Amino acid sequence: MLIIGELINSSRKAVAEAIEKQDAETIQKLAGDQAEAGADFIDVNAGTFVGKESQYLKWLVTNVQEVTDRPCAIDSPDPEAIQVALEIHKGIPLINSISLEKERYDSLLPILAGTDFKVIALCMSDAGMPESVEDRLKIADQLVNGLIQNNVKTENIFVDPLVQPVSVNKTFGMEFLNAVEEIMKRFEGIHTVCGLSNISYGLPARKFLNRCFMTMAISRGLDAAIMNPLDQQMMAAVAGAEALAGKDDFCMNYLKAFRAGNFAD
Amino acid sequence: MLIIGELINSSRKAVAEAIEKQDAETIQKLAGDQAEAGADFIDVNAGTFVGKESQYLKWLVTNVQEVTDRPCAIDSPDPEAIQVALEIHKGIPLINSISLEKERYDSLLPILAGTDFKVIALCMSDAGMPESVEDRLKIADQLVNGLIQNNVKTENIFVDPLVQPVSVNKTFGMEFLNAVEEIMKRFEGIHTVCGLSNISYGLPARKFLNRCFMTMAISRGLDAAIMNPLDQQMMAAVAGAEALAGKDDFCMNYLKAFRAGNFAD
Repeated sequence: MLIIGELINSSRKAVAEAIEKQDAETIQKLAGDQAEAGADFIDVNAGTFVGKESQYLKWLVTNVQEVTDRPCAIDSPDPEAIQVALEIHKGIPLINSISLEKERYDSLLPILAGTDFKVIALCMSDAGMPESVEDRLKIADQLVNGLIQNNVKTENIFVDPLVQPVSVNKTFGMEFLNAVEEIMKRFEGIHTVCGLSNISYGLPARKFLNRCFMTMAISRGLDAAIMNPLDQQMMAAVAGAEALAGKDDFCMNYLKAFRAGNFAD
Repeated sequence: MLIIGELINSSRKAVAEAIEKQDAETIQKLAGDQAEAGADFIDVNAGTFVGKESQYLKWLVTNVQEVTDRPCAIDSPDPEAIQVALEIHKGIPLINSISLEKERYDSLLPILAGTDFKVIALCMSDAGMPESVEDRLKIADQLVNGLIQNNVKTENIFVDPLVQPVSVNKTFGMEFLNAVEEIMKRFEGIHTVCGLSNISYGLPARKFLNRCFMTMAISRGLDAAIMNPLDQQMMAAVAGAEALAGKDDFCMNYLKAFRAGNFAD
């Protein structure tokens, strides 16, 4: 499982404050803690600062890369902000994200073309968020084929089929799961990713539901997640699900996670 | 989800003692507690008492039916013992279980033919336990078709594809899940069932793993389980998984279970 640590996001109050104060220590602690807990990428997002996003995103990348060698997930809907951050990013970043929304697609594609950058491809178009499996697959097909034609390798593409809440429509969970399974079948070597907390919107015990849903999604082939690696119960769910889904030789990672004490039996 | 309460089983020391002492109170408390916690069937098993199994099974059925109107799951590999218990069982029982093992199949089929009894059909043959999806489906096809030809209704059949431990072979979890999905697709109206604790054999934090696996199985269509309904965390996993898998209109059961306080977020 590839884990994209989600904590450095300006939509979180403490992070917004740290960014405004240019408090590098707070940001670097979040980066270091997430890396230590198992994050493969450190997401950086300064999206709430209109007009200053590029500048702050660059500052985040610089500070994160001072304390960890994990690459950043450069998280912005704005191709310009992404490009500014890329100028100083060391190593191979994950771009979060391209979509089929025309403006975003057209301006981000040239930045990605022919590179080794990894990229999250959101199943979103100008028609809005998809609801059915078919809607998701149609967008995924266009996105993936467009990227491949522009010399982005399949194994660098992370398709996010977009989770919607089961409280809104009871079929939304299954539509997502079926989309994950189908995308993993359709494009050999591709990844699927999500930020799954949306599934539990409007319901109580959200963390509990998010863990259950993570378990289901891993059994369908989900192999990356934007999540909080400091959430020990979620990390335990990931380890348990990978063992059960046959992705953990001799259950070695599971046993290691168990010995690290993340488990409430 | 149909829940078959598993606690009245002579392989459990306290139950074996209660049976030997003919301590009806202990058995009746277990039956009542399981019914109250949501069991749809109360499993009764006296299999450890060689030579006395029929007599004890009959005693268990009598005592259970004095305190609850939930039907019994009459649990024995021995068709004779099942028949003795059936003589006094009121209502429509669940027979646990038929399999493709020749002796068991040939002697149990006449008991089931043309009845409204519900029956668990174990994917087991004289060749032993199946490992792959294909092995399971081959046995399931023969069992289900045999039962249907003998006028057992599809909706009264509960196929158990048999869980084997992921610690023995990492593919065993997925083989089981894929079998559940395929069986539910192949026979309209059929049920799938399992006693899933075998999945975690040989690993630590077994209850945790069993809950994760239940969650996965429900998302594949599993709609019955032989389990302990007094295990609140497992019951919470069932409620959560059903909401996520689109089997709970407006998440009503989930919200009810949450209000009953079974959840650790």
